Amino acid sequence: MTDALTIEPAHRARPGSESDSGSGEVDRAVRAADLAFRTSVRSPATDRTRWLRTVADRLDDAADELIAIATAETGLATPRLVGEVARTTGQLRMFAAVIEEGSYVEAIIDHAATSATPPRPDLRRTLRPIGPVAVFAASNFPFAFSVAGGDTASALAIGAPVIVKAHSGHPLLSLRTAEIVSAALAEAGAPDGLFGLVGAAADGSSRAIGIELVEHPLVAAASFTGSVAGGRALADRAAARPEPIPFFGELGSLNPVVVTAEADAARGEALAAGLAGSFQGSAGQLCTKPGIVFVPRGSVLEAALPPHVGAAPHRLLTEAIDGGFRNGVEHLAAVPGVELVAGGIGSENGPAPVVYAVGLDAFADDRHRDVLTREVFGPTTLLVRYDAQDALLPVLTELEGSLTATIHAAPEGELVLDGLVEVLAARAGRLLFDGWPTGVAVTWSQHHGGPWPATTSQHTSVGGTAVRRFQRPIVYQDAPAAVLPPELQEDNPLRIPRRVDGALRLPSRP
Amino acid sequence: MTDALTIEPAHRARPGSESDSGSGEVDRAVRAADLAFRTSVRSPATDRTRWLRTVADRLDDAADELIAIATAETGLATPRLVGEVARTTGQLRMFAAVIEEGSYVEAIIDHAATSATPPRPDLRRTLRPIGPVAVFAASNFPFAFSVAGGDTASALAIGAPVIVKAHSGHPLLSLRTAEIVSAALAEAGAPDGLFGLVGAAADGSSRAIGIELVEHPLVAAASFTGSVAGGRALADRAAARPEPIPFFGELGSLNPVVVTAEADAARGEALAAGLAGSFQGSAGQLCTKPGIVFVPRGSVLEAALPPHVGAAPHRLLTEAIDGGFRNGVEHLAAVPGVELVAGGIGSENGPAPVVYAVGLDAFADDRHRDVLTREVFGPTTLLVRYDAQDALLPVLTELEGSLTATIHAAPEGELVLDGLVEVLAARAGRLLFDGWPTGVAVTWSQHHGGPWPATTSQHTSVGGTAVRRFQRPIVYQDAPAAVLPPELQEDNPLRIPRRVDGALRLPSRP
Repeated sequence: MTDALTIEPAHRARPGSESDSGSGEVDRAVRAADLAFRTSVRSPATDRTRWLRTVADRLDDAADELIAIATAETGLATPRLVGEVARTTGQLRMFAAVIEEGSYVEAIIDHAATSATPPRPDLRRTLRPIGPVAVFAASNFPFAFSVAGGDTASALAIGAPVIVKAHSGHPLLSLRTAEIVSAALAEAGAPDGLFGLVGAAADGSSRAIGIELVEHPLVAAASFTGSVAGGRALADRAAARPEPIPFFGELGSLNPVVVTAEADAARGEALAAGLAGSFQGSAGQLCTKPGIVFVPRGSVLEAALPPHVGAAPHRLLTEAIDGGFRNGVEHLAAVPGVELVAGGIGSENGPAPVVYAVGLDAFADDRHRDVLTREVFGPTTLLVRYDAQDALLPVLTELEGSLTATIHAAPEGELVLDGLVEVLAARAGRLLFDGWPTGVAVTWSQHHGGPWPATTSQHTSVGGTAVRRFQRPIVYQDAPAAVLPPELQEDNPLRIPRRVDGALRLPSRP
Repeated sequence: MTDALTIEPAHRARPGSESDSGSGEVDRAVRAADLAFRTSVRSPATDRTRWLRTVADRLDDAADELIAIATAETGLATPRLVGEVARTTGQLRMFAAVIEEGSYVEAIIDHAATSATPPRPDLRRTLRPIGPVAVFAASNFPFAFSVAGGDTASALAIGAPVIVKAHSGHPLLSLRTAEIVSAALAEAGAPDGLFGLVGAAADGSSRAIGIELVEHPLVAAASFTGSVAGGRALADRAAARPEPIPFFGELGSLNPVVVTAEADAARGEALAAGLAGSFQGSAGQLCTKPGIVFVPRGSVLEAALPPHVGAAPHRLLTEAIDGGFRNGVEHLAAVPGVELVAGGIGSENGPAPVVYAVGLDAFADDRHRDVLTREVFGPTTLLVRYDAQDALLPVLTELEGSLTATIHAAPEGELVLDGLVEVLAARAGRLLFDGWPTGVAVTWSQHHGGPWPATTSQHTSVGGTAVRRFQRPIVYQDAPAAVLPPELQEDNPLRIPRRVDGALRLPSRP
């Protein structure tokens, strides 16, 4: 039997890649990940669930220490960070449950049909990990979309090594989290190099490190959460490689909200309070912040909003985000027809929350569309006043893709909604009714994605199906039993759901 | 209720796209498809299965006429074309069965958990069609990968309109097939514009039409089967759009085969006959043609091969392919160390099948790697002679991705195979044992794809899961019952498999 150690990297290196490498840090981490992949690609599900749960346990153990670092680095409020750690470790455990359930490999078996025309061989399909994954951490979720966040969890869950590019907004937290993750993985018996961190020494080279990572020939896929400009630059690099790789980016989202006249009349004051909470939470630094709200002209909501627009709860995450917010708000305010609805109070270092409004006609004017539909990260939202609901449809159709779209309607308005629902369904990945888009439940069904620029792919970065980003199909034709991975063996030793000869079958649990 | 006709296109048009358009033909077809999408996006499964089956029936009715046109245009043998029509209509019917089974929407329901921390809303996920799909037809399967081929079938199956870019190798067949498809869809009550054909007037503008199509702002995805150069050019355009779109390309594949010394000793003569049939079938113009075969030095296979290398069964598909074949063979023959093993006889207009051989050391030499590992479309294959099987592994690791990889081994060789299997599994989408890669069964489990450049994505273009390319997730949060699509309604009116509160559930069939 060939010693596994003599096998070359499963994902091939191009000649010259060593000398082409600009940073030893990235190259070392990626090569270690590639080495780990030789083991992790065939790691049993029971190993991977142990990795995930051990990481979750050790992060929970260190929560107080981590939250203290995060508070200092990000400015986010402690209760929010406490919740985020719980969400992050819960997410790791959820992916362990997804792996145990087993549907994630989409096992399909078609037995040979020798009497068919033409005869069919035995074919057995499963999903295998694609290879080392570059994970670009986000600024605004220092736990849940960062070093040990959903991208890392979903890659490790299916056996793909991870190289995290730290976000420059929280380097110390990234380093400390990575230490804990690495130690936990070692404790759980994971292969060396399965997880690595680069770019935590935040300096001017952060962008260069990111580019080097996405262009490294041994990186097989990348995931990203951040700005449209940053994500597009990396996506373009991923697509331009000699061997292009999939790039799963979550870039930007306006998250439109439509409030019908009936809903406004029935509960406009409650809607004002809800909107205020949603756009100001975490100082407006959420991917699903409602950035644009279509309200009837003269709405109860608009009249009731000012008292709810308060002080910024804390500073923004980074100076760059603070600058971007102030700049975005200035540009909004300068558009003809835009009026100030409510202005809050700045806190220490933090800018004032602010709400503007504009009429539907001015909003639909091509000359100002770019400014009015540009995502402004931070505590602001734009009300768009409409007269007739029918006039909304062509305007909504022109919106760029979003992660979410929300409808507030009175129940009796359902029939009128039909056109609204379909137009918004075409523009978003999650369609909410009588709720607010901030808050993304981590469940089997969740979808956190949407048409460009919300995401760059047809996959989600949150929820049970997020693992699919890092898998690729392989089919075994007439394979000897000893060669088949366990999920494809005839007697279904993993007891997972499989499609056999066309029929989906559930395992009989012992 | 808003009249559906007043709703603007579900996939938004950018301002100015009309005037930017170079060809009225493309713009008209795409706009018609976009209009059809307003209906097809919500079309019931029963409508779509009727579309597919009616198209299949009408193509079968016209098979004799179509095969006569195809024979004249492509030069392919009639029996092969008869089989291909049956495969094409069988494929349309298979996708109808996939739709009826219902798993393809991946329905997931998580009921609200109001007592959870934080409380969770009701979330229901399904997959919806992404929008109008551009399908680039292939040269080598004038039916199965062309106007009414697998890409068209899988898009129509899930309600995505299709605009086919005809291949210039069979324009008359494309036009006639499109007439039959259009008439069948009209007969089955499909919306106007659901299917369109462009580029059948084959002239110098074929490339420009393809680019215009992939860049049209209302096109939401593209699929392609063809050369690495052509596919890469289109993939780059798709990625560079203002709103990038997914591009599902199947570009090129070497399809490596490894014959172990044991297998050669046990059945080398039979292997020679099998290889000869596989690389010469359809004059070697198959995506899964074995292009490179690793054999023990002094193999029975190599010695037995010459008598099986016969006359080309027919001309190649086009002059360009013929020129590419002659050019590729010339380059192969010119590499130092490459020897002629067997040369066949050219037929009328058709070049002679030919087999070369080279030693493993020469093959692994960087100076000639590009020539020796370039796919040559047509009846040729390259034997690579090895001394020790262990020396193969690093060489196999360096191969580019392929659609298939094949191992011929004696049963007792299984343990020795371990390294081989894993290395080849890393380089291909389908792993065959003791078979030949030509012939791709259309089944639930089939995977026709692989690492770059075999395909550009983690999806298949053949088999039941091919529909996933043209779907994107959407989740409904706290939606009123009347708004939910049928697959997400509480009582499961479509009787499809769904995941409910974490558990996969099969429908109770009446």
